[in-house]
Amino acid sequence: MSELRQNLITRDWVIIANERSKRPNQFTKKTEINRHLPSYQPNCPFCPGNEHDTAEEICCLGDRKNWRVRAVFNKYPAVSPAEEPLRKIQGSYRSISGFGIHEVIIESRRHNANLALISVAEITDIFTMYRERYSQLRRDPRIKTIVIFKNHGLQAGTSLEHPHSQIAATPVVPGQVRDRLSEAIRYFDETGECLYCRMIQDELASAERIIAETEQFVAFIPYAALSPFHLWIFPKRHTCSFEQITDSEVVDLSRILKIVLAKLYYGLNNPDYNYTIRSIPTDQDYTDYYHWYLAIIPRVSRAAGFELGSGMFINTSLPEESAEFLRSVEVPSS
Amino acid sequence: MSELRQNLITRDWVIIANERSKRPNQFTKKTEINRHLPSYQPNCPFCPGNEHDTAEEICCLGDRKNWRVRAVFNKYPAVSPAEEPLRKIQGSYRSISGFGIHEVIIESRRHNANLALISVAEITDIFTMYRERYSQLRRDPRIKTIVIFKNHGLQAGTSLEHPHSQIAATPVVPGQVRDRLSEAIRYFDETGECLYCRMIQDELASAERIIAETEQFVAFIPYAALSPFHLWIFPKRHTCSFEQITDSEVVDLSRILKIVLAKLYYGLNNPDYNYTIRSIPTDQDYTDYYHWYLAIIPRVSRAAGFELGSGMFINTSLPEESAEFLRSVEVPSS
Repeated sequence: MSELRQNLITRDWVIIANERSKRPNQFTKKTEINRHLPSYQPNCPFCPGNEHDTAEEICCLGDRKNWRVRAVFNKYPAVSPAEEPLRKIQGSYRSISGFGIHEVIIESRRHNANLALISVAEITDIFTMYRERYSQLRRDPRIKTIVIFKNHGLQAGTSLEHPHSQIAATPVVPGQVRDRLSEAIRYFDETGECLYCRMIQDELASAERIIAETEQFVAFIPYAALSPFHLWIFPKRHTCSFEQITDSEVVDLSRILKIVLAKLYYGLNNPDYNYTIRSIPTDQDYTDYYHWYLAIIPRVSRAAGFELGSGMFINTSLPEESAEFLRSVEVPSS
Repeated sequence: MSELRQNLITRDWVIIANERSKRPNQFTKKTEINRHLPSYQPNCPFCPGNEHDTAEEICCLGDRKNWRVRAVFNKYPAVSPAEEPLRKIQGSYRSISGFGIHEVIIESRRHNANLALISVAEITDIFTMYRERYSQLRRDPRIKTIVIFKNHGLQAGTSLEHPHSQIAATPVVPGQVRDRLSEAIRYFDETGECLYCRMIQDELASAERIIAETEQFVAFIPYAALSPFHLWIFPKRHTCSFEQITDSEVVDLSRILKIVLAKLYYGLNNPDYNYTIRSIPTDQDYTDYYHWYLAIIPRVSRAAGFELGSGMFINTSLPEESAEFLRSVEVPSS
């Protein structure tokens, strides 16, 4: 018997379609787990020695010759800091000139570094850089939204093999985000609590959909996950902006992320995935009603006409079953 | 210089990224245009003679032996009419048992029929069947949303080659649709006009993004198209529900759809695409503020972490340029 579930945070409805349901291991990637990438690729612009092949460097961790993580401008930026954010409204047409910042974070010196396999210390470097860049970008009052994201694998939209993530900062708050905020405000006004804190407590209490838990973070598959293995990692303490992450939380987040990514890697054979950090619009701070989180979306299924035509989703996996499967995946200790 | 554009109807922001922009013909599908499908495939459940291989037939056009278009229940339905739509609210968990209807429209007897190439009369049959089914399904007061959609090609999520579309009817109105409706109501209350009628008039006046126009319909690429060649076909007269389409409009819609799909077929080498009919929730009727339309989404690009993490989009094509390209594609007369 299938079931429609509504995600209280996104307000999206999803059909958990059990007539079409697949066992968790049917989402396993068919191709070879080891793509046998070399650790160094002479013509890769992100490999050490080719630093001149990237756009201008913004900063790096470690010294310039022996950097561990580098932040550089995107060579093919979607938006540019050279523009001013000028709004034009002409009848029903609304636009803003292409102001914004588009950066690339080169996550490792090694061409074949995989976040599921590298050390917690290495992931900590990456997230320390995210926080540094987020904090810098936020100081520009023209910026309203900062999106930190990673595309891993072809299905997730990567064009470059060398491990990297991106930061895009835009002068607008997306309509989708505005809608979620007003829902969160409404919930807060009616109950006096953060909707996200409520969900975290409920998930911890039920435990059915939990994948991993550390001192300061919890990872679970949402009750109304839009697609198979769609995962959320939340800080347990109430905090609305990624900028407010503490040093010890950066380490703890790196720890839980490595666990979760390793479970996906071994359980689903290195699936393509995106992850993204959902933080509050940068013109807000310390709100009681919003809570930042990291979302991981393994690209193991495809949105089709139903999804595009309705904003509803069909998920052919049962979140509780997928969570149980991931919990049972054993990860070699490193 | 790139530009951020906002779609007034969806409120989505899209970055029209000209630094990354591609010429229209760069979206052309690389694989062979003629997949040389046979017109009859003995083991295809949708081919004539295998009628017993589908789930129960609901109705057909033509007589049962010589049907032209068939409506059947989906053999692997996402939702089922055997359920009652029972709502459960337990703390932060909201669900409805999997009530709904999921049908398949088999569009032709021929295994290799392609909507871009078949006759207007054949397309008219398909849309006549859509209207018939829509109208029947709408009579069930438990149904709130009817989604008619087609998945063409692997990238669009098709698993069966034989040309078919689907109809899914659900007991909920998606949050996305509710948000669009309240925007449309707000626009109507402030201006006294339908936002969609306004956009149609503006697009006809500017002509920059028009692909085709018939007596009763107009096809254009929206000013803030989310992805390359994303297209909308609107009835020119104000009408909020697909159910209200007249016989002559069914013929005229078939005519413009054939023109548009043929331009995509010849211009982009038979791209994978989805189309979907966006009609008002079925518990509303004759509203002044909503306008039904058909959306076509060629699957020539991929949403990545930025899109998933923000609800904003990056479009690497310029809508005006894509429209000019499609207008110039010559289609053999048939």
